[in-house]
Amino acid sequence: MFRLRKKVNCDHNATTPVSRSVRKAMLKILTSFQANPSTPYRDGRLAAQLVEGARQDLAAALNVGPDTIIFTSGATEANNHLRSIAPLMPSGRRSIIYNPMEHPAVLEPLRLLAEDSYKLIAAEPDRYGRIGVADLKRQWSDEIGLAVLMGANNETGTLYDLKAMAEFVHLNGAFLFSDLVQALGKTPLDLTDLGVDYASFSAHKIYGPKGVGALYVKTGAPFAPFMVGGGQENGRRAGTESLHNLAGLAAAARDIPVLLGKTSGLRQLKETFIEKISEFYPRVSFNTPPGSGSQPGTVSLTLPGLDNAFLLGQLDFHGISAAAGSACRTGENDPSHALTAIGLSPEAARSTLRLSFGHDFSPRELAYVLKIFKIILLGDEHKRITVLKPGDLTEDFLFQKDLTVIHIKRFPRFQGQKPLPGSRVTALADSSAWEELKPAGPLLLTCDAGYDAPIMAWRLRRRGFKNLSVLAFGLWGLKMTRPDFLARIEALSREEGNEHEP
Amino acid sequence: MFRLRKKVNCDHNATTPVSRSVRKAMLKILTSFQANPSTPYRDGRLAAQLVEGARQDLAAALNVGPDTIIFTSGATEANNHLRSIAPLMPSGRRSIIYNPMEHPAVLEPLRLLAEDSYKLIAAEPDRYGRIGVADLKRQWSDEIGLAVLMGANNETGTLYDLKAMAEFVHLNGAFLFSDLVQALGKTPLDLTDLGVDYASFSAHKIYGPKGVGALYVKTGAPFAPFMVGGGQENGRRAGTESLHNLAGLAAAARDIPVLLGKTSGLRQLKETFIEKISEFYPRVSFNTPPGSGSQPGTVSLTLPGLDNAFLLGQLDFHGISAAAGSACRTGENDPSHALTAIGLSPEAARSTLRLSFGHDFSPRELAYVLKIFKIILLGDEHKRITVLKPGDLTEDFLFQKDLTVIHIKRFPRFQGQKPLPGSRVTALADSSAWEELKPAGPLLLTCDAGYDAPIMAWRLRRRGFKNLSVLAFGLWGLKMTRPDFLARIEALSREEGNEHEP
Repeated sequence: MFRLRKKVNCDHNATTPVSRSVRKAMLKILTSFQANPSTPYRDGRLAAQLVEGARQDLAAALNVGPDTIIFTSGATEANNHLRSIAPLMPSGRRSIIYNPMEHPAVLEPLRLLAEDSYKLIAAEPDRYGRIGVADLKRQWSDEIGLAVLMGANNETGTLYDLKAMAEFVHLNGAFLFSDLVQALGKTPLDLTDLGVDYASFSAHKIYGPKGVGALYVKTGAPFAPFMVGGGQENGRRAGTESLHNLAGLAAAARDIPVLLGKTSGLRQLKETFIEKISEFYPRVSFNTPPGSGSQPGTVSLTLPGLDNAFLLGQLDFHGISAAAGSACRTGENDPSHALTAIGLSPEAARSTLRLSFGHDFSPRELAYVLKIFKIILLGDEHKRITVLKPGDLTEDFLFQKDLTVIHIKRFPRFQGQKPLPGSRVTALADSSAWEELKPAGPLLLTCDAGYDAPIMAWRLRRRGFKNLSVLAFGLWGLKMTRPDFLARIEALSREEGNEHEP
Repeated sequence: MFRLRKKVNCDHNATTPVSRSVRKAMLKILTSFQANPSTPYRDGRLAAQLVEGARQDLAAALNVGPDTIIFTSGATEANNHLRSIAPLMPSGRRSIIYNPMEHPAVLEPLRLLAEDSYKLIAAEPDRYGRIGVADLKRQWSDEIGLAVLMGANNETGTLYDLKAMAEFVHLNGAFLFSDLVQALGKTPLDLTDLGVDYASFSAHKIYGPKGVGALYVKTGAPFAPFMVGGGQENGRRAGTESLHNLAGLAAAARDIPVLLGKTSGLRQLKETFIEKISEFYPRVSFNTPPGSGSQPGTVSLTLPGLDNAFLLGQLDFHGISAAAGSACRTGENDPSHALTAIGLSPEAARSTLRLSFGHDFSPRELAYVLKIFKIILLGDEHKRITVLKPGDLTEDFLFQKDLTVIHIKRFPRFQGQKPLPGSRVTALADSSAWEELKPAGPLLLTCDAGYDAPIMAWRLRRRGFKNLSVLAFGLWGLKMTRPDFLARIEALSREEGNEHEP
């Protein structure tokens, strides 16, 4: 079987590994002083100095004063400040205009605000996810006190002209909150020039550690804490500072100019990828804005008729990490909200992959990725695993003598869809359960929504399993299209007494 | 000048350094896979396995099922769940009974609930901070839906009989939320046996990393997320998991039995400390419950007539880290809320030190600590720095020719009290400002509340400064006792045109 031993991470929008300088900075703290920065003695002062130094490093990278930076446990926490900030908007203004392609960490706080009588107005992105001043103008109302507009979209890579939008928002007496997680390190960010009022950042998208981020609050912008308790961060964010994580964030912030220096080379490699794929697979279409209107390393491609979960499994089989939509939503039934917001049908969204190359992506790695895409898209490798569409599943198949049916759950907690009758339930993250399996006899893999089964099938194929089938679209697909069949096999299963409850 | 080069950390309740096994576990992650646990490919599954493994490790240490553990960015975040949980209490019950000695990370969420029409009932601890079932019974009302009672107090070291209180609370149809940050690793915690409904934990108090903690939610207890966004932690806490921090937390959790094995030796050393100090300084009194009713390494001692900030400075001068109240409140004007709750006068609270020895505290270190206490309490070392009480400050002194006046701010943001007229404002954490100072000529150090100036004075003494004075109780003391004098020197200062604004 053709398989190279290469490993190429094409999922840098989900997270980045820590860089050498970040690791070094973190290790320095973990092996030296680790006092609580709120303590007054020597090590405590060193700790406080470290925190303030990190603040200056991040502030310098964003061209703002250090007092505008509040450290948080990550971008999610920074974005949750929407909940403490919204009530401070100019009086009487209870409407919020937002980009419907925002990350769940923005959408969920907004959803809570909507439950609390705020009115949400979704802006209307174009086919590439773009939103401009004209769009805001069209939907503007005097009730709007806050605009929530990201700087770069994680799924399509769309970059936004925040400066123009900030000017418009301010002219209309409102404030602008911008999730800049995906913009940092990918496009120059001068917050003083951009004029946004609030911005959120995460270290682990710029080769820093996971579990630390920041909220920028423009001097004079209304503010109320989200996390309350001790007086840390000048009373603006409680909780003992994660010294080693802040050291890592600072190192990552200092390296931002290096990252920016690599973006044009990276963009060229991406353009080559787009060009080559289009050549050998003309049915492909791209959801990433052409030219410089996107993150340098991100490409969202729709491959009509193909199932992205199956493609992800094949890519993983060949050592390539990629994504179908946002990492934080993987495993859910709904098609990507960002892709449907730009007009993709649920089917097209289900046929869409996102690749996000890192700043050190090389021509060699590109060549490998293109080679594997050629194999996947033009070859017959896909036949090595039998894909059963919901309509293909029969009683005869399901009740054949030696068939093992495994229903895969994303996490060990076994919530979600009821598993297929007669199946054994196993968590994707439960390594021991997978190691117990023997590669003999027919195996059918199912899951809730059809994401995890194909991926695990390719993993098992790699480990020597031959007689593998997966149920495309999972139990959800069966429930949507063949509820009667599902009911019948449930009844049959009960008769045979082999129903396994999770 | 007598000074040993020893360094003894006696402030483990503020934070602990990471242990070797914790550092090793963290480094392993930082140098290997760091995928987002929400991604389905190989490294993502490894990451998810790591998260689930960490959950099992902590759950095992607490004798509960892994599904009851929600990872957070620390205990502060875990405690902020009070705000999302309180609305779910049995219908009609809008009162909360709580221990007034709780950490600010508990008190502040409670304060927000009080603003939102919840009624708070403060339990009444005894002279050692103890609260029992009888106390709850005395103050109980049918309106109470939630009891918020810590497992161990960080300032006095008081341990609580949670099992009996949980039984009482449950008999009365309410829920029990317990901050167990200071109890973990110091007393055996079997949550199944204790029966608490919610509990919060922090890694950095048990030799784990800062920036990670957990919330325990008993199976079936009402729950709503505090941090919303992506579907991490089974939809219960959004935000990309801090893999290396979780690896560190897991290592620390696995070592809890080792910590517990050291507690009886540690308690003996503490008893010796108490005994010896009482011998050579009979005026001392202790706020820590005698015997086994306290954390093994914590001792709170009141030294009547002495200023704890000055003592902290002297201890720091000799390499000993100690605390006056909770680290998270240091630098504020108010006397410790926990100490006033057990009946200490503001003066007595201001004369109180907290020492919290680590699990590896040794007889050698104890001998050194005792030696230094003897020097401080019985010797005349304190005369090396002139302490001006608010009443001692004169115009002549303040306007003498060569006097440099430095007003110290805790952090570089320069908020709080207006500085003393004619003073230069410098942050405690601003190392460069301190390095610029030359040890010649008279120097007066002031600060907002009298905490930071004495500490810095002893630091400067160590660096060769001889002609040092500090203003005890800072600007706050002056404002409280001599507002007229303050106004007069402000006027004089304006005339001389040498007022520096921060």
